[in-house]
Amino acid sequence: MREIPDFPRPGIVFKDITPLLLAPDALRSAVTGLAEIAGPLEPDIVVAAEARGFILGASLALALGVGFVPARKPGKLPHEVVRAEYALEYGLDAVEVHADAFAGGTRVLLHDDLLATGGTARAVCQLAEHLGAEVVGCAFLIELRFLEGRRQLAPYPIRSLIEY
Amino acid sequence: MREIPDFPRPGIVFKDITPLLLAPDALRSAVTGLAEIAGPLEPDIVVAAEARGFILGASLALALGVGFVPARKPGKLPHEVVRAEYALEYGLDAVEVHADAFAGGTRVLLHDDLLATGGTARAVCQLAEHLGAEVVGCAFLIELRFLEGRRQLAPYPIRSLIEY
Repeated sequence: MREIPDFPRPGIVFKDITPLLLAPDALRSAVTGLAEIAGPLEPDIVVAAEARGFILGASLALALGVGFVPARKPGKLPHEVVRAEYALEYGLDAVEVHADAFAGGTRVLLHDDLLATGGTARAVCQLAEHLGAEVVGCAFLIELRFLEGRRQLAPYPIRSLIEY
Repeated sequence: MREIPDFPRPGIVFKDITPLLLAPDALRSAVTGLAEIAGPLEPDIVVAAEARGFILGASLALALGVGFVPARKPGKLPHEVVRAEYALEYGLDAVEVHADAFAGGTRVLLHDDLLATGGTARAVCQLAEHLGAEVVGCAFLIELRFLEGRRQLAPYPIRSLIEY
């Protein structure tokens, strides 16, 4: 990984995972590592938000032998959806999943490459619960501990492979 | 898969792959099938455009034992980028990759879930070539033959798992 200062805004140090994705061994280790920390939560399904969450999310689902649910920006999913709005630093954003994505009682694992403030992850978990699923935990490649995203996601179990 | 009439616009029948992603066996078959048709092209890397291309793209890279390069909408990649614009039905769109994503001579496979008119795929292939890589082919889950995307992508070898 490499750090990019002042992206996307001044003062933010962006964790760029593209060098990790480029290296076959690192890519494999990332997915294997995520499967090891997420497996004991015994999910039936992995859900991840676009776009970066999709990169490792489907691979993680395959490694765990479960299905994958994409959570998307409004207007992108073609069938009936449910939507959650969540606060950004300035304004609101929203995320949608298909209303038939989760059968009642499905054990859902939320994945994203990075846990920052946890707003998107929390919104997606709430959508899963709204549809009758059980959120068994969240698995991140990277967690930025100082942003305290864990607090937003309490009481879900949080697993992360790399912490800063 | 299911078909959604009149999405995203009237007259378009959208191929919704979310039921396939949800079923672990179908998800595994899709990735295995893509790896079987793409493997003989002997790529060193898989490149895919956001957002839907990411879902199976990284899994395909893992199955082939190669790395993954994300192609993104403008402004999303944090390091130095190269950009290609391409025509939509109305207006222009653009896609970017990191300028250091491909070493010279890298054998690149383009993946997307769907080949329609081929505009995005062609733009990404051109970026890879601009950076000195060799595009060894394109592998799609679904190809809509009647839209003639193959013509846009000539002379790259095209492989698709499901044709309509």
